[in-house]
Amino acid sequence: MRVEELATPALVVDRQILDINLETMARALPGRRCRPHVKAHKTTALAQLQAGVGHLGFTAATPREVVGLAAAGLHHDLLLANETVDASRLRTMADCPARVTVAVDSIETIGAAAGSGIREVLIDVNVGLPRCGCDPADAGRLADAARAQGLEVRGVMGYEGQVYLHTDRADRAAATDAAMAVLATAHRAVGGDVVSAGATGTYDLNSIATEIQAGSYALMDQTFAPMIPAFSPALWIEATVISVARGFAVADCGLKALGMDHGNPTVNDAKVLLVSDEHLTFRPDHTRRVGDHIRVWPAHIDPTVAYHDQMHVVADDEVVDHWAVDLRGW
Amino acid sequence: MRVEELATPALVVDRQILDINLETMARALPGRRCRPHVKAHKTTALAQLQAGVGHLGFTAATPREVVGLAAAGLHHDLLLANETVDASRLRTMADCPARVTVAVDSIETIGAAAGSGIREVLIDVNVGLPRCGCDPADAGRLADAARAQGLEVRGVMGYEGQVYLHTDRADRAAATDAAMAVLATAHRAVGGDVVSAGATGTYDLNSIATEIQAGSYALMDQTFAPMIPAFSPALWIEATVISVARGFAVADCGLKALGMDHGNPTVNDAKVLLVSDEHLTFRPDHTRRVGDHIRVWPAHIDPTVAYHDQMHVVADDEVVDHWAVDLRGW
Repeated sequence: MRVEELATPALVVDRQILDINLETMARALPGRRCRPHVKAHKTTALAQLQAGVGHLGFTAATPREVVGLAAAGLHHDLLLANETVDASRLRTMADCPARVTVAVDSIETIGAAAGSGIREVLIDVNVGLPRCGCDPADAGRLADAARAQGLEVRGVMGYEGQVYLHTDRADRAAATDAAMAVLATAHRAVGGDVVSAGATGTYDLNSIATEIQAGSYALMDQTFAPMIPAFSPALWIEATVISVARGFAVADCGLKALGMDHGNPTVNDAKVLLVSDEHLTFRPDHTRRVGDHIRVWPAHIDPTVAYHDQMHVVADDEVVDHWAVDLRGW
Repeated sequence: MRVEELATPALVVDRQILDINLETMARALPGRRCRPHVKAHKTTALAQLQAGVGHLGFTAATPREVVGLAAAGLHHDLLLANETVDASRLRTMADCPARVTVAVDSIETIGAAAGSGIREVLIDVNVGLPRCGCDPADAGRLADAARAQGLEVRGVMGYEGQVYLHTDRADRAAATDAAMAVLATAHRAVGGDVVSAGATGTYDLNSIATEIQAGSYALMDQTFAPMIPAFSPALWIEATVISVARGFAVADCGLKALGMDHGNPTVNDAKVLLVSDEHLTFRPDHTRRVGDHIRVWPAHIDPTVAYHDQMHVVADDEVVDHWAVDLRGW
C-alpha cells in the first residue's frame, strides 16, 4: 500500500528518518547515557527500536507508560519521571515484571511510593521550571526520609525545560549549566549513582547528567527542529483535500488530530489559515483538487500522537508497518 | 464511589447540569428543530439522553460518528455534516442500519457519495466561514448534478461559525441574519425540505434554519458559556495535586488531557500558570496539599473529550455511571 492510499487523517512515520534520528542519538549518547522518554511517541514498537540501538532504560511520564513498557518486555530499567500518589497505580508498577524507579519530591510522594511496594526512587529537584521537583535545599532531607522508609535512593533528577526559551545555542548552554549546577549541589546532598536530566534540546549541552531523558529526538517537533538540527521531523499527518474554494482549500485534519498548544501545524508550500475540529483550511500556492493528499506537520508531536491509535510506518512512501500507539492514557 | 476517589486525570460530567442543559434545549427547539451534533461529546450514552428528550436526528462530523450512532440504535436520521471522498467509509455509512444523509459541496463529493451507495444528501453552502461549503451561486447547479446521479437532495446546510467572533448578542444576531440570507437564497435554488444550520451560539437567533446543529450546549465550553447563559458547563477534569512548592502547586492534568486550541483551562479560585504534557501548574489563593483534588475546566470541550476513553457521570459528587466515549476516531 502507498501512503496516498491510507484512510485519513492518518499518523505517518518515515522509517528512514526515524532510524537516522535513533542512530544519531545512539552515537552521541550511547547505552546508559540516554534514557529515551516514551511520552512523545507512546509506542512500544518504537521503543523496541530504541532498545535495539542500545538504549535499554526508558523514561515515562505516566504509570500506564511504565506498565506498558514492562508488558512489552522492556523491563531493564524504567523511570517514572513524574510524581504520583495513586496507590493503586504505584502498586501495579511495583508488581510489574521490570526494574521500576519513581520520582519523588515530597514526604507525601515518598510515603505513597514506600507504602505501595515501590523499591527505588530518584529525588526530583526543581532546577528552574515551575513544575514538579523539590526545593534544592530540601533534597538531602527527602533522601534521608526515603531511606528511612526503606527506599533505595538511586540519585536525583531535574528537568531544565526552561532552557527551551533560548533559541540561541550559547544562551541555552549557559542556562543548562546554571540549572545543572543546582542539580549537582542537590546530588551531593542526596548521593547515589544517577543524575537524570535533560531533553532533546540539551542532549549535547548537559555535561552534568549521567543520563539524558530525551524524547522528542525520535520523531522531532517542527517547532524545535530548527534549534536542534541533528534530528529531523519524521512524523506527519496524511490528510485529504475535501473541499476547494476560491482562494483556499480544506483538508480533513483538524484539531482532534493535532496537538495545538504550540500553535498551528504547517503544510508544505501552503499557508494554514484556520484549524477547527475536523478541518484544516489552507491557502495553496498552486492548484489543489478534491481528493489530493497533503502532509500536515504538527507543531508539537506529543499531544498529536496521543490522539491516534496507530502510526503507519512508511519507507519511500510505501506503507511497511502499522504500530499501535499502545501507551496512551494514564 | 465519590468523585474524589476517581483515578486522575478523569473526565467528569455532572448529570444534573447536563439534564438541565438537555431539557432547556428541548424546550427551546423541540423535536426536529434541533439535530444535536455529537462531535462535542462523542458518546452514544449521552446521545441516548438527547433522543430521550425528543431529539431523534443527529449531526456528525466523521463517518465513525455516524456508524457508531447507528450501531447504538440511533438510526432515525443521521447527517454527516462534512465532506468526504473516502469510498470505503461512504459505503460503510450507506450500508449501516440508519437513514444517512451526507453533505456535499462539489462534483467530486457528489460523485463519491453516489458511487458508494449513499442515497440522500444536503448541498453544503459556504455562508461566510472559510471552510467547506460551495459558492452559494453554485448550489442549484450542484443540486441538479446530484439529482442527475440519482441522489435525493433533501435541502441545504451552512455553518455560520464566523458569528462567534461577536460576543455581543445583537451583533451576533445581525451576522446570523446575513449568513442565513445567503443560505435562504441557495435553498431557493436547491429545493428540498431541510435548511440545516447553526450551533449553540445561534440556537435562539437563527430564524431561517429548519433545524439547528447544536453540539456544545450539552456540556458547554467555558469559553462560550458567558455568551450563551442558558447553558452551563457540565464537564471538568478531576485532577490530583502531585507537588506543592513555594508560590505554586502542580496537578496531574496536562495538555494530553485537555484541548488547548482555545487556550489554558481554568481552575476554581486559582490562576493557571503553565500547562505541559502531563502537568498543570497553578497559583493557589489558599493552601493546597499533595493529594488534594482540583477541578480543571477546559476552555474547549470537543478536543478535550477526544483524549479520553470514558466519562465518569456524577450526581451530588457521587459517581453514578461510566460512559464510554465510543465515537472517537474517524
